[in-house]
Amino acid sequence: MRATAQLIRRIDDGDSGVFAELALLYRHAGRAHVIGFTGSPGVGKSTLVDRVVSRFRQDERTVGILAVDPTSPFTGGAILGDRIRMQKHFLDEGVFIRSMATRGKFGGLTRSTADAIVVLDAMGKDVIIVETVGVGQDEVDIVHNAHTTVLVTIPGMGDEIQAIKAGLMEIGDLFVVNKADREGAAKTLRELRFLLQMSSDRYEASGWTPPIIDTVASADQGVDELYRAILDHHHYLLEHGRERLMERDKMRARNQILDLLKENLMERTLERLGGVQALDGVVEEIVAKTKDPYGASSELVERILGGAVN
Amino acid sequence: MRATAQLIRRIDDGDSGVFAELALLYRHAGRAHVIGFTGSPGVGKSTLVDRVVSRFRQDERTVGILAVDPTSPFTGGAILGDRIRMQKHFLDEGVFIRSMATRGKFGGLTRSTADAIVVLDAMGKDVIIVETVGVGQDEVDIVHNAHTTVLVTIPGMGDEIQAIKAGLMEIGDLFVVNKADREGAAKTLRELRFLLQMSSDRYEASGWTPPIIDTVASADQGVDELYRAILDHHHYLLEHGRERLMERDKMRARNQILDLLKENLMERTLERLGGVQALDGVVEEIVAKTKDPYGASSELVERILGGAVN
Repeated sequence: MRATAQLIRRIDDGDSGVFAELALLYRHAGRAHVIGFTGSPGVGKSTLVDRVVSRFRQDERTVGILAVDPTSPFTGGAILGDRIRMQKHFLDEGVFIRSMATRGKFGGLTRSTADAIVVLDAMGKDVIIVETVGVGQDEVDIVHNAHTTVLVTIPGMGDEIQAIKAGLMEIGDLFVVNKADREGAAKTLRELRFLLQMSSDRYEASGWTPPIIDTVASADQGVDELYRAILDHHHYLLEHGRERLMERDKMRARNQILDLLKENLMERTLERLGGVQALDGVVEEIVAKTKDPYGASSELVERILGGAVN
Repeated sequence: MRATAQLIRRIDDGDSGVFAELALLYRHAGRAHVIGFTGSPGVGKSTLVDRVVSRFRQDERTVGILAVDPTSPFTGGAILGDRIRMQKHFLDEGVFIRSMATRGKFGGLTRSTADAIVVLDAMGKDVIIVETVGVGQDEVDIVHNAHTTVLVTIPGMGDEIQAIKAGLMEIGDLFVVNKADREGAAKTLRELRFLLQMSSDRYEASGWTPPIIDTVASADQGVDELYRAILDHHHYLLEHGRERLMERDKMRARNQILDLLKENLMERTLERLGGVQALDGVVEEIVAKTKDPYGASSELVERILGGAVN
């Protein structure tokens, strides 16, 4: 437990010395069910996660929670009530909670989250929940690490539906309309259903049509349905979606190797140039407009990769 | 106008052939006032931007708008009413509107947005407005390109205030509470004022204390105040904040060179390895757990940078 916490802290700090340990742990990973929860601030993701975690604990599953969300009570950033509510999990030995805050030096939150998943997975957590905020590319990338992605919205966020339409539709395995006792819930459910219908061919081909679940997490309404839908999706992946599971694992591996390559290359390059401060001179010249960033970057790359560059 | 559009499209497509043109344009850039608008979906950023653009046009300033936001009507993703409302700007020769959608191959939205700013700046736009969504790291990075950053929120988003507290406070030069005719506006204004007070020492030292402006953009209320505050901040940067302006330009140059380095290194490395498909074998081995991503990445870097790597 303590070793896990330390390792994840070092990952979050961008300590590249952890790679050797991660390499060893990697061989023991691959058993956990990784679940992503994403949605805008204020949609109640954390309350939902809290409730779902309780269900997993009732079924004696161990859980790791990674909160990549500045508004999450897991990160300690939220209002007191939320934090108190979370304490029951903080005191539970079967639940490991960690926030991912800073990005690695050149790797980013996506990579450090992927690494933290490896750690929790290798440590034997049955379920790993990654909570992210928003609709940005970072979230999409982080969610690519999940086997099951839950998209959470609330009634009356027309713009949010547009965002889902624009970019997040494809990554959602389950859709939740939380705070469904609010005005406009029926309309939001209708809009989501319509969006899903437009992709029905694709869903039929895959064998999984995302359910739309309405919940009132604060009153524990709809949480059992959500929990069952999450288990159903996991079951689908294991039984009927082996290929899809494999695809996701491959996508994750590809992203991970690209991110690591990027980070390694930058680290070694800056080492060779003499550290980040070696860029100070170039930055001055760019600001003074005696150089432009595009030419300057090419020059630096030539210096590193040498004449053999084609 | 057409050349600009083509160039920005090529940037958005991740075409690295544009670098030579960007290098030339860069020397002509540096005059424009770059303004960032950021906030969650549904806070009304686009309506605010629309109103502010009208003010700039009344003062005969030319404007470039970059929408890095899947929910923005500028991207064509939003409801019909918004799109119709925007048409007056679409037909205005003095306004150039472009959405930034895809990320470059290895560079990301941050770099392509920085490049598009260079283009619009060199083309002589007086003002460049970058509209981003959400509270993720991508947004923070994109906003680092702006001289003036406007953070938009609405009443009743307690979690959003937490997000601002957690990560966005430092980047806001102006705070807007839009839809201020809604319940809870006074409370949100109070919370923001309290947050700003906590940083008052820092603000006094810098000579600029972020104003908090309440608006009802849809009814054009408070927009004049916002417009004047934006001009005030620009004036502050030009007259009293030269150092700060320089700092921002340096930060932008540093981010740009780091992003370009990363992208160039990756591109050349993958070229040398024989293209992205050269990674397929490695990905298979990682998924089969005969390799781990950490060791595999080190091996690849060794192959590229050779024995001289320390």
